[in-house]
Amino acid sequence: RELTMVNETQHTCSASSSSKSDGGSSSGGESSKDSSRCSTPVLDADRHERLREKMRRRQESGDKWFSLEFFPPRTANAAVNLISRFDRMGAGGPLFIDVTWHPAGDPGSDKETSSMIIANTAVNYCGLETILHMTCCNQTKDDITGHLQKAKRLGLKNIMALRGDPVGEEWEEEVDGFNYAVDLVKHIRNEFDDYFDICVAGYPKGHPEAESYEADLRYLKEKVFAGADFIITQLFFRSETFLKFMKDCQAIGITCPIIPGIFPIQGYHSLRQLVKLSKLEVPQEIKDVIEPIKDNDAAIRNFGVEQAVSMCRELLDSGMVHGLHFYTLNREVATTEVLKRLGLWTEDPRRPLPWAVSAHPKRRVEDVRPIFWASRPKSYIYRTQEWDDFPNGRWGNSSSPAFGELKDYYLFYLKSKSPREELLKMWGEELTGEESVFEVFTCYITGEPNKNGHKVTCMPWNDDPLATETNLLKEQLEKVNRRGILTINSQPNINGKPSTDPIVGWGPSGGYVFQKAYLEFFTSSEIVTALLKVLKKYELRVNYHIVNVKGQNITNAPDLQPNAVTWGIFPGREIIQPTVVDPVSFLSWKDEAFALWIEQWAKLYEEESPSRMIIQYIHDNYYLVNLVDNDFPLENCLWQVVDDTFELLNTQTQ
Amino acid sequence: RELTMVNETQHTCSASSSSKSDGGSSSGGESSKDSSRCSTPVLDADRHERLREKMRRRQESGDKWFSLEFFPPRTANAAVNLISRFDRMGAGGPLFIDVTWHPAGDPGSDKETSSMIIANTAVNYCGLETILHMTCCNQTKDDITGHLQKAKRLGLKNIMALRGDPVGEEWEEEVDGFNYAVDLVKHIRNEFDDYFDICVAGYPKGHPEAESYEADLRYLKEKVFAGADFIITQLFFRSETFLKFMKDCQAIGITCPIIPGIFPIQGYHSLRQLVKLSKLEVPQEIKDVIEPIKDNDAAIRNFGVEQAVSMCRELLDSGMVHGLHFYTLNREVATTEVLKRLGLWTEDPRRPLPWAVSAHPKRRVEDVRPIFWASRPKSYIYRTQEWDDFPNGRWGNSSSPAFGELKDYYLFYLKSKSPREELLKMWGEELTGEESVFEVFTCYITGEPNKNGHKVTCMPWNDDPLATETNLLKEQLEKVNRRGILTINSQPNINGKPSTDPIVGWGPSGGYVFQKAYLEFFTSSEIVTALLKVLKKYELRVNYHIVNVKGQNITNAPDLQPNAVTWGIFPGREIIQPTVVDPVSFLSWKDEAFALWIEQWAKLYEEESPSRMIIQYIHDNYYLVNLVDNDFPLENCLWQVVDDTFELLNTQTQ
Repeated sequence: RELTMVNETQHTCSASSSSKSDGGSSSGGESSKDSSRCSTPVLDADRHERLREKMRRRQESGDKWFSLEFFPPRTANAAVNLISRFDRMGAGGPLFIDVTWHPAGDPGSDKETSSMIIANTAVNYCGLETILHMTCCNQTKDDITGHLQKAKRLGLKNIMALRGDPVGEEWEEEVDGFNYAVDLVKHIRNEFDDYFDICVAGYPKGHPEAESYEADLRYLKEKVFAGADFIITQLFFRSETFLKFMKDCQAIGITCPIIPGIFPIQGYHSLRQLVKLSKLEVPQEIKDVIEPIKDNDAAIRNFGVEQAVSMCRELLDSGMVHGLHFYTLNREVATTEVLKRLGLWTEDPRRPLPWAVSAHPKRRVEDVRPIFWASRPKSYIYRTQEWDDFPNGRWGNSSSPAFGELKDYYLFYLKSKSPREELLKMWGEELTGEESVFEVFTCYITGEPNKNGHKVTCMPWNDDPLATETNLLKEQLEKVNRRGILTINSQPNINGKPSTDPIVGWGPSGGYVFQKAYLEFFTSSEIVTALLKVLKKYELRVNYHIVNVKGQNITNAPDLQPNAVTWGIFPGREIIQPTVVDPVSFLSWKDEAFALWIEQWAKLYEEESPSRMIIQYIHDNYYLVNLVDNDFPLENCLWQVVDDTFELLNTQTQ
Repeated sequence: RELTMVNETQHTCSASSSSKSDGGSSSGGESSKDSSRCSTPVLDADRHERLREKMRRRQESGDKWFSLEFFPPRTANAAVNLISRFDRMGAGGPLFIDVTWHPAGDPGSDKETSSMIIANTAVNYCGLETILHMTCCNQTKDDITGHLQKAKRLGLKNIMALRGDPVGEEWEEEVDGFNYAVDLVKHIRNEFDDYFDICVAGYPKGHPEAESYEADLRYLKEKVFAGADFIITQLFFRSETFLKFMKDCQAIGITCPIIPGIFPIQGYHSLRQLVKLSKLEVPQEIKDVIEPIKDNDAAIRNFGVEQAVSMCRELLDSGMVHGLHFYTLNREVATTEVLKRLGLWTEDPRRPLPWAVSAHPKRRVEDVRPIFWASRPKSYIYRTQEWDDFPNGRWGNSSSPAFGELKDYYLFYLKSKSPREELLKMWGEELTGEESVFEVFTCYITGEPNKNGHKVTCMPWNDDPLATETNLLKEQLEKVNRRGILTINSQPNINGKPSTDPIVGWGPSGGYVFQKAYLEFFTSSEIVTALLKVLKKYELRVNYHIVNVKGQNITNAPDLQPNAVTWGIFPGREIIQPTVVDPVSFLSWKDEAFALWIEQWAKLYEEESPSRMIIQYIHDNYYLVNLVDNDFPLENCLWQVVDDTFELLNTQTQ
């Protein structure tokens, strides 16, 4: 009976939403897809949708979109840089990115540069909707199935099914093998049902090996009817080429989305290389412009941007194109410029949660994390990748308290992006004492150059310069770092700012966000002793956890319960509390935070060198402290706590 | 390895809490009992403790307590009254109540007056820690086991194990049967291990049937050593009697808590009756006072209060007594008076949650409920009693969305406490139209007598007079009810009041509580049509659900998600959001809310009578509406919404 009632509602709901003028209406395009009470909070409908549904919704709403293609890097260093690029270009709001498949580069392996691992990183660590390319020729069914199973296990949900280039000049069809992309599409649908969204390639000029343009169109239709969800085209140089192709597709009954592949010309040589590979002909009007400036990279890139912008405008103006796919060649400037000129680059300051959400389907419900990994989100995702459940609403609800071991922290995406020489310049070629360490922390906070004239733009615990929000605390932070309170994480208190606030806002609009003041730092046992005396005065107001590398732990947290330090109240939703200070996970973080002293800093110096011994001393003897001021509507008292501590120390030494 | 670290912390935590002067300290007496991350939020340590632990903790903290004994009522009406008494006397803060076992009254049955059901009601519906008495003589092991299993199933956790009075004059020991309370204690421990806390009776003057006082003490020791956790004594008239008994117990090695049973003399006849049953002798000094005033009930009760207060003071002053057990005889005045005079009656305005928490162990984690049942908490508990899980933190997390059927709403504790004649006086002997219904609602809000001079102190949806909090909205509520917006539930918006606020506060101290403004009412379809037009202006700010008895449902709630309307932020804890507006459960509530028109109001009148037809018309044609103003920091806009609606209606009719 209950079920019947629920269904009745559903029916009535949809009825009323389709007749908005009658008064009742459902909000925006986010109508319910579940037929019973949803068991997870929906902060953002995007998080639950398949790529093809997102595409359909954007098409219906008339909201134009773009996507970005990358190829796997050759070296581990290049991989680290590419991932930073994913983060930066991800900020512009691509509907998805895709990663190409290079049969020669062991694309399905666990190497940090493989297509599989780069796509995995994009989905899980950068939170990007990702399509993994996959080619089928010269591979066994078992290999392909293995790759697909691995992709599924890693949280990849979209495959671009390609034939791939046969190895060698002569290509023979294999019986029972995969000879065409359509075979791969069929195989995916056979073996994985509807799990993957499948994309296939379209050739606006026809595939170079096809008998004819018409034959190639028929072949494309076959791929779509075998189960492909949408088409991305090969690059082209004139909008008419694409628009004609699209009409021809529609004429023979291809109705799925067809996305034009855009190649902003970025240099003479890359263009020639591409033309050779794709067997495309560059139109004379383009050759005429390019040839005379072929040695002027900047000029060619400017032209490329102009040409891409005007072609994209024509496509969008045609009314037939809803999204644009960019061949980035792993470069940032040209594509970003085109997107900005087109008005498609939408750097939305409003985050769905105050931390980057992983796009792994398993992590959909995740909406609480410990604050400790705030500056190391990839490390957090890595260390929780084996969790079966993710905390939903309450941290205390998680049944997966074991954090992954640190033994793998050398993994490339946990390493610093900066090379050793760079780090030595920032953190000191030679340390003369604990004070020179204080100096490094202080320079990182202030942004001022160190005594050798180098700016400190990262720290072992912070790969990026100071967050805008932390900037609010800059003056106080500088003062305390100078005196040996070595801060690695902090947030100000916030008493109900609009969720659209450009600095501290997150979540849907119309809401209010709140924070408790938080301060986390390393400091000497001398300061800790004084601090503990001072904290007695603040017993009911300030929660603290103080731990050293051996795990000695001093706290006043009740029952080892987590303390919510960031939360948001939104229209028509339950409370979201995305960040907590959790006493139990703090001990896992402690291991990582102390290890970073050694792995990232001490190891820059020779063994037994004085510099190395200074860092080792700090590692062995300092405490890691975190403080929460629970009284969020009042002025943050944590600075007073620190001031009182220094005052107590002064009195004692006098 | 993770586990080891956690254990290390635990060790260090306890070490530091036992050496507070070293700086580190654990908060209050709420030290952690769990050795790993707690999976449920602890708002109140009491909710997780066994009765014997609570007793120990209170003894350690030096915090004196009291408990109350009741017997099962004879009639269903008396049961309804007794339950109200539980609620009122529960407000004074008893550590537990106990319910006696009457073998002649089918005590283990499902009858609304059975010991079992009364104890069940006390635990589940009134949220009181409860001891169920159980006697064993003349019963089979199977019967006893059955009763115990049922008690466990109903959430009862404490048993007072008694022999009971043999039926008939001559009593013969049964081989293999239960002849003494000690047999019952052993049986409970054998069959239910440590599940129940067991209480046994002590006789300060020795059991009347015992060979000697010493023999009785040895027998008591046997009961304790068989597994009893504490002792409650038979009544006595002099503090020396109890204190000697206690010393004698301790002398022979009885170390468990011994709680004196206090009997405030409440009348001449009840005293005589009791003396006859218990075979106790009333001391001459008491007889001397009572005999001359035996026909003056008030005088005897005053004396009884005086005598009890002075005896209790002596007991407490002895330093040996930590709690007092009161034989209430199901009466309220004398015991309450004694407790108030002793300073033990502690009506704590601070609620752990904004609604009464059920004491059923299964419901421990429950900390979210839909707002709809705010005035009918017992009905909510009844309709969710079959749930396996209770929402913890997020309403959306509950996997038990099915609400119990309404077929049982005639159950005595869902019925109105007032008799039919009373209700007719309040709600009108004869209704002349919808306006006379508006008038009833208005009188309920204002507290003014109706046109026949009767105050309206309850409504079908509200068994009690207006809540203090609702009083804040009185003026506005009166205005709208007069015009046919028939309000049944509402709350003002609150933007961060201290959790200790006497009116809207709840939860641990040091926190802040928040609310979104809420308004729920019945109204005509004419008003609904205008309201929906007005609501368009408030689309982004106000969430609404509008439903009629047939289930036609109009809403703008996103994805049928629940909307948190009450929440609290506390030091060192996760966010608590105890009240939500949940679109799905609203449809279950709708059935109940509409049914109350008929079951409680229409059925007061003859079938086919005009009064009955008016109520039936409202039931059939009105809508149930709820409105939430999401913008809690601003002034509540719901009154403006209603004003705009009336204005629109005025314009239309002009």
